[in-house]
Amino acid sequence: MSINQAQQKEIAELKSTANQTFRPVVKDLEELLYEPIEVLDHGFVRVIDYMGDDAAVVQAARVSYGRGTKQISQDRGLIRYLMRHWHTTPFEMCEIKLHIKLPIFIARQWIRHRTANVNEYSARYSILDKEFYIPAAANLAAQADNNRQGRGDVLEGQEAHDVLEMLKEDSERNYTNYMKMLNLNDTDDSKIDESKQGLARELARMNLSLNYYTQWYWKIDLNNLLHFLMLRADSHAQYEIRVYADAILKIVEKWVPFTYEAFIDYRMHSVNLSKQMRDVIVKMIKGEEVNQATSGLSAREWDEMMTKMGITN
Amino acid sequence: MSINQAQQKEIAELKSTANQTFRPVVKDLEELLYEPIEVLDHGFVRVIDYMGDDAAVVQAARVSYGRGTKQISQDRGLIRYLMRHWHTTPFEMCEIKLHIKLPIFIARQWIRHRTANVNEYSARYSILDKEFYIPAAANLAAQADNNRQGRGDVLEGQEAHDVLEMLKEDSERNYTNYMKMLNLNDTDDSKIDESKQGLARELARMNLSLNYYTQWYWKIDLNNLLHFLMLRADSHAQYEIRVYADAILKIVEKWVPFTYEAFIDYRMHSVNLSKQMRDVIVKMIKGEEVNQATSGLSAREWDEMMTKMGITN
Amino acid sequence: MSINQAQQKEIAELKSTANQTFRPVVKDLEELLYEPIEVLDHGFVRVIDYMGDDAAVVQAARVSYGRGTKQISQDRGLIRYLMRHWHTTPFEMCEIKLHIKLPIFIARQWIRHRTANVNEYSARYSILDKEFYIPAAANLAAQADNNRQGRGDVLEGQEAHDVLEMLKEDSERNYTNYMKMLNLNDTDDSKIDESKQGLARELARMNLSLNYYTQWYWKIDLNNLLHFLMLRADSHAQYEIRVYADAILKIVEKWVPFTYEAFIDYRMHSVNLSKQMRDVIVKMIKGEEVNQATSGLSAREWDEMMTKMGITN
Amino acid sequence: MSINQAQQKEIAELKSTANQTFRPVVKDLEELLYEPIEVLDHGFVRVIDYMGDDAAVVQAARVSYGRGTKQISQDRGLIRYLMRHWHTTPFEMCEIKLHIKLPIFIARQWIRHRTANVNEYSARYSILDKEFYIPAAANLAAQADNNRQGRGDVLEGQEAHDVLEMLKEDSERNYTNYMKMLNLNDTDDSKIDESKQGLARELARMNLSLNYYTQWYWKIDLNNLLHFLMLRADSHAQYEIRVYADAILKIVEKWVPFTYEAFIDYRMHSVNLSKQMRDVIVKMIKGEEVNQATSGLSAREWDEMMTKMGITN
Repeated sequence: MSINQAQQKEIAELKSTANQTFRPVVKDLEELLYEPIEVLDHGFVRVIDYMGDDAAVVQAARVSYGRGTKQISQDRGLIRYLMRHWHTTPFEMCEIKLHIKLPIFIARQWIRHRTANVNEYSARYSILDKEFYIPAAANLAAQADNNRQGRGDVLEGQEAHDVLEMLKEDSERNYTNYMKMLNLNDTDDSKIDESKQGLARELARMNLSLNYYTQWYWKIDLNNLLHFLMLRADSHAQYEIRVYADAILKIVEKWVPFTYEAFIDYRMHSVNLSKQMRDVIVKMIKGEEVNQATSGLSAREWDEMMTKMGITN
Repeated sequence: MSINQAQQKEIAELKSTANQTFRPVVKDLEELLYEPIEVLDHGFVRVIDYMGDDAAVVQAARVSYGRGTKQISQDRGLIRYLMRHWHTTPFEMCEIKLHIKLPIFIARQWIRHRTANVNEYSARYSILDKEFYIPAAANLAAQADNNRQGRGDVLEGQEAHDVLEMLKEDSERNYTNYMKMLNLNDTDDSKIDESKQGLARELARMNLSLNYYTQWYWKIDLNNLLHFLMLRADSHAQYEIRVYADAILKIVEKWVPFTYEAFIDYRMHSVNLSKQMRDVIVKMIKGEEVNQATSGLSAREWDEMMTKMGITN
Repeated sequence: MSINQAQQKEIAELKSTANQTFRPVVKDLEELLYEPIEVLDHGFVRVIDYMGDDAAVVQAARVSYGRGTKQISQDRGLIRYLMRHWHTTPFEMCEIKLHIKLPIFIARQWIRHRTANVNEYSARYSILDKEFYIPAAANLAAQADNNRQGRGDVLEGQEAHDVLEMLKEDSERNYTNYMKMLNLNDTDDSKIDESKQGLARELARMNLSLNYYTQWYWKIDLNNLLHFLMLRADSHAQYEIRVYADAILKIVEKWVPFTYEAFIDYRMHSVNLSKQMRDVIVKMIKGEEVNQATSGLSAREWDEMMTKMGITN
Repeated sequence: MSINQAQQKEIAELKSTANQTFRPVVKDLEELLYEPIEVLDHGFVRVIDYMGDDAAVVQAARVSYGRGTKQISQDRGLIRYLMRHWHTTPFEMCEIKLHIKLPIFIARQWIRHRTANVNEYSARYSILDKEFYIPAAANLAAQADNNRQGRGDVLEGQEAHDVLEMLKEDSERNYTNYMKMLNLNDTDDSKIDESKQGLARELARMNLSLNYYTQWYWKIDLNNLLHFLMLRADSHAQYEIRVYADAILKIVEKWVPFTYEAFIDYRMHSVNLSKQMRDVIVKMIKGEEVNQATSGLSAREWDEMMTKMGITN
């Protein structure tokens, strides 16, 4: 379980009394506030705070567009228009703060999104808990043959068994030695040996492996969050970050339903055709015969196009 | 008056019913919400939304600092510690959204602060109101003699009168011609002459002068806001932006009082001594005789140091 | 002419002697260095410095992709792959510094691109030259009827004549009064009247209109530059900024020809189809009958799609 | 050795022929180009490219300050003025690109500096080399007693020996198992067992510990680089990142000597006094008796002040 009893009690208290505010409130998101949404074997995503809603996007767009637009555009229509035409700044007017627990190797991918605010649990200052990620059997994927950064079939039988054993044993041993270096007992953080000093925390942490969990507060505006989700909820993203993106997508759906819908239609499920691809598609529409050889596209691009369009030869 | 009746009614409606939220609420700031704080002759600052409070800074710092600190540090002490040691990221966990009306030449200074979200009223799309900044008599400063970007005494008599007349007349005339180019009547936006097309708005706007008012939604995190305030509430900032910074400082005081206090002590009223200045100060403390000539400092730096320290020879 | 004789001499000197460097050099861009490319009636773009080339993009991508890729991908192919799959970070490894002279109302659009470094000529500190933008007859566009931020036909006859007269006269008068307020003679910056103080520069500047020219040094990485160009070289961008974008596009073509080509194919001339549009296109390819009414698209989106695809009914 | 023979040959080739350029060139930095500066046991910093020099800072400042300043300020004086008054934007006009090899736990600190461009070697795509950080005996520090994120004395005797053994053994074993999971032979990357698939690289990498080396291209402007150095070359920074900051400081000294000198005087060795500290210092200068009890400062702040000022009671 990713949240302990003390933390559960703290959350219950936060939810026991509501406050009065004149700010916009999103009821569906209020229910979700503070509650951990479990991800992977020990991870979670929690909504800690939020600012704005779909109407805040519209309000900001209308300042920049000014008087005269109020009657014309319904909110949903305006949001779809903004999304379609890449008028992204109004989406920056909403902000969300999440508390996330995630394996370090995923945190390293995540942090590459620079336009966000982060406060991470410091293993320089504190002691990391003994929590590490071990993939479920269904996610223990082999290396893909044709794609250097992709996954192939799931490992099975003895090979799967051996891999899981190695991951677990190394994680266990590294933690045991981490605590030994710190000269601390695992159970109560008391000293193992009064005659020893214990290695500095900022050094001892380097003995832990990249599947150990860390946690952070992560605050980001809606526009940059959607960009993160477009890349990380995509089928090419690594499974272990995609499950976090999927959890956040559900939060976004509750928070800003119009924006969510427009994002799905114009970003997540949209197709980008190069100049050359468009020419090929137009020929197809006109009923002209085109194949990869005559298209001018490389075999790779041809396959990408057919997959994106959902056309089977 | 910077807000019209329709807008005042809208604001009153927003303040007539409170919503329930589980998020942190700052009572003193709730009262201020939506209300225009008047600045200059037609400008204002309005708080539209906010996220977080002093406790949110502490919460974020404690995630990064982890278990064990909860008892030691009181919130105020921790916030002062963070401010003193330039641990700035926890202050990024609070966010505020302001609606600001300001002269264009000030907007051009303001926008140089890049880490913020902005939606500006578009004169490409809409028609600007006839509102321009004319300095009050007390602020009609002469060029400083000794500082190329500073102000000297206030202009007086005929010179002051002539300057104000020129500013007003040119502003008036430029607006009249702006509307003529657009082929619009000032009173009701109807066409002046049905046989004319009217110049494109995106072109006509360039006839307006830099003292015309624009407005925008501006959203920024607390850390970057403090940086903005340090530079723009400073005595070297231009008066016309400083009055906005002063108005926002009062908002910050209500919003995050511990952070405000620490900011005043460790940033606004702090003194930065160069290596050489420190050496001079240490000599002074030891009772050694030092003057500009023997200090190794330039005359300019010596004066800056004495002023900053508040020492009079 | 946008550059004076003293500046021309300075440029000639910079080009008179070459230096030795071990850094990558782009010959075609070296020729262009420092030379003003004229834009609008007084504006220019000058390349001041640059870092990296197409090979620098490849080099950075290969660090992140590591050993093993060197043989597979040719540089051009890799750059096209990166562009197609929105792997944008390697393009951030190239940097360019431009000196740009442009009307203030265009500078206000330009500065909204936040991820860049800027140093602007300060009218708080110095006196602006008497240079303002007056559109050529062919660009004196009427307001569009159907698009609030668009242009319609060109103004003609008396209306065009009147608009140009108003623009010129107001610009002239505003400058004359700017100098009067400063108490300075236009010709030699001497005082007009020794008994007057002159208004502070930081105030007097507000009498100038938005078509006055300013100038700045602007430094940006290639990825963010391409994003700027995608938005500002687009047909929906205002003409007066598009001409700058077009000038910079030609610079990019000389600087990083592979990147330029990929950018044109996968960004500038690409088509983004929403989920719904794709479904319509697939039906068209299958020879099914689809029209706007049966498509599920709004009339507006249907028209946008047909235009983007270049299909005429 | 951190660079292999093939890489050394590549570097030698790059340095064998110089190119002609009209751009500014810094001779002292040219000599350093491409050469690895060794840091820690396997790390390095290499200068890959640079843009600008001290004169570029001055040039940018003078655009923003305009005509009239050219005679007054000497370059050095202007740079010192800019640094002292936090006019930071002109320093953004210089850019440097470094290739850095560093342990992952240090990379995690480093990446928190967001305003930079990064391309990292991808362990999702490629196989990491068997290189991990083991502290030298002199850097094997104990946990500090009085500071949760600090270091105390160096570990000695049996405790030091045991810690080093644990670090080495765990690092070795984790790599051995990493390769086993990948089903690859360490020596030649051939398959260990043809009947096995091998775990996906993006998963196997999580078995490596945080002392493993990674590498990246890192590009940053001079202003943000100085901010990085102020924090990371500081005595409170972790030793393992400070040695990188120290190496980069030496590069900066060769690249922009005036900026370096001003940075040392006004940033690195400057002292920031709070409002309260200043009042205490002024009393001291006047010869008044002040001690911690009467100062109004906390014991902690009093000590910090005395240390910063270099005053011993």
